[in-house]
Amino acid sequence: MSVLPTKRVRIYDVAQAAGVSVATASKALNDTGRMTDETRSRVKEAASSLGFRPNAMARGLIQRRSFTVGLLTNDTYGRFTLPLMAGVSEALVDQGVSVFLCAIEDDPALAKIHVDAMLDKQVDGIIASGKRIDRQLPVDLTNLSVPVVYAFTKGPDDAVSLVSDDAEGSGEAVEWLQSLGRQRIVHVTGPKTFASVEERAGAYRASIGEGARVLYGTWSEQWGHEAVAQLWGEAAEKPDAIFCGNDQIARGVVDALRERGVAVPGDVSVVGFDNWEIVAAATRPPLTTIDMNLKELGREAGRLVLALAAGETVEPGIRKLPCQLVIRQSCGGVPRS
Amino acid sequence: MSVLPTKRVRIYDVAQAAGVSVATASKALNDTGRMTDETRSRVKEAASSLGFRPNAMARGLIQRRSFTVGLLTNDTYGRFTLPLMAGVSEALVDQGVSVFLCAIEDDPALAKIHVDAMLDKQVDGIIASGKRIDRQLPVDLTNLSVPVVYAFTKGPDDAVSLVSDDAEGSGEAVEWLQSLGRQRIVHVTGPKTFASVEERAGAYRASIGEGARVLYGTWSEQWGHEAVAQLWGEAAEKPDAIFCGNDQIARGVVDALRERGVAVPGDVSVVGFDNWEIVAAATRPPLTTIDMNLKELGREAGRLVLALAAGETVEPGIRKLPCQLVIRQSCGGVPRS
Repeated sequence: MSVLPTKRVRIYDVAQAAGVSVATASKALNDTGRMTDETRSRVKEAASSLGFRPNAMARGLIQRRSFTVGLLTNDTYGRFTLPLMAGVSEALVDQGVSVFLCAIEDDPALAKIHVDAMLDKQVDGIIASGKRIDRQLPVDLTNLSVPVVYAFTKGPDDAVSLVSDDAEGSGEAVEWLQSLGRQRIVHVTGPKTFASVEERAGAYRASIGEGARVLYGTWSEQWGHEAVAQLWGEAAEKPDAIFCGNDQIARGVVDALRERGVAVPGDVSVVGFDNWEIVAAATRPPLTTIDMNLKELGREAGRLVLALAAGETVEPGIRKLPCQLVIRQSCGGVPRS
Repeated sequence: MSVLPTKRVRIYDVAQAAGVSVATASKALNDTGRMTDETRSRVKEAASSLGFRPNAMARGLIQRRSFTVGLLTNDTYGRFTLPLMAGVSEALVDQGVSVFLCAIEDDPALAKIHVDAMLDKQVDGIIASGKRIDRQLPVDLTNLSVPVVYAFTKGPDDAVSLVSDDAEGSGEAVEWLQSLGRQRIVHVTGPKTFASVEERAGAYRASIGEGARVLYGTWSEQWGHEAVAQLWGEAAEKPDAIFCGNDQIARGVVDALRERGVAVPGDVSVVGFDNWEIVAAATRPPLTTIDMNLKELGREAGRLVLALAAGETVEPGIRKLPCQLVIRQSCGGVPRS
């Protein structure tokens, strides 16, 4: 019986106990790699005494693996890539896998150089990521010698792709506002040309039914100000809730309402989208918003690319991961346990 | 005479012409690595016809190099690391060097795992980076088998370290305000415990002389609001300029002034620090601010770690790189030159 029965013994526990790196420990257990017999025995004894049971991933870490994965992104701001990267890293680090970060902006030549460099280093796989889910990166990743997983960017139809479920997140936002008794909920969002905008607006319309109203604009605070000026300049009854397409718009909306003497959340509840901490937490009052769970998306991308690298079969297609409502103070209401 | 005399021929031009990766091209030219004679000849002919002259860095790319560098950071937000990473990548990519990004948060165990993984992959060097220049990362990087360069984090005294020149940046901010005729310039900044805060405040005091006034607080918009409430609640003559320790404070100051009916920049000029686009550009009016040139800092770190990896001698000590005033609209005035 293990001393710590609730904690799974991981490869790095074995590595630490044996005083070797994770990669060395893995190679030792798989009878691959170059090392002294003494080292190999020490690792095996450590594994045995700790009760280590290699999982499918760990079994995949066999010979001819470089223990590296490349993360390719054109999201130079890092707004989406950073949480994703954190998740990827979390999924891979205890397998001894390190991540090359390749920021390619929108430059095809630069992208090609990075991809060549990664292939040259025999990465075990590539995770392609971006700043919107309906655009491909400016580089062709089909027919590479290594597996590719697409996360928060558009991949070919037969690829393994991960995105957050925009419609589900939008539904959560509307449901929360309705549960607070809001009845005139307007949706102020980004450009119609973004797939995620139409996905969110569609789910909003489906939830609201009659009386749904969508204002399209840009992804900016400025647009939040303009939308409020437009809505409050009309003769019609004012909204009692505004569901915004991102946190920047929501911040503009909240500031514009305050400047008009409209109380948030007293008179109007506001929900954002993204849970971009720097914007959401600094808004007065701080934003209730939808988190796309990009870190979990990154973890899943890491797990999938390792599975593919280990030769496992992964069903192709688009996987949609659920979003999560993060409750701060811009709606009123208290967190649901 | 070259067809494009103004453009230096780089190793990746050679690689492209020969249809091989940068690393392969480099190895071919250095008579190292494994490849067919035909490939090696093709690369050499391409180099010759393009007039390629390998520089010191390229000559350093010899056998036993992994063409990888690790970037270790505890700046999970990515605020400082992302521009730095962009610079590092820019300096290295055309040398065929890829960058492992290792986000270690403030977790010594995680840091150790990442460092072991990098050493195991025989990185050519490590760049250590962080979120403040007066704290060491939670891992000992001395006595490693590979060179280490410290960029925007504290290193040992005998290390090669790069930081932005806070005092110089502070001087630029004050000089700009004075050139606009401002005479009552107050400095509203972050916690006294940050070395960069004292560095900036010291330079501010030295520039202003008599009448200098520093208000210490937190790195937040909220503190900007509080500082304005304090200053405008006093009987004394009001400031005609506020130099802020970061852009978040500056945004709070600008918002608080507007809410009091004080015109920015009409009545009061405001300068920020960081040039953090998402904050500086969204402020109304957009912030004039000091840019720490972190991308250039990253480029220099990349160049230095490659030089060290190539066995070149690099003088240890702290290198301070100049900041740059970025003029938007919160001060009035027009860009110089």
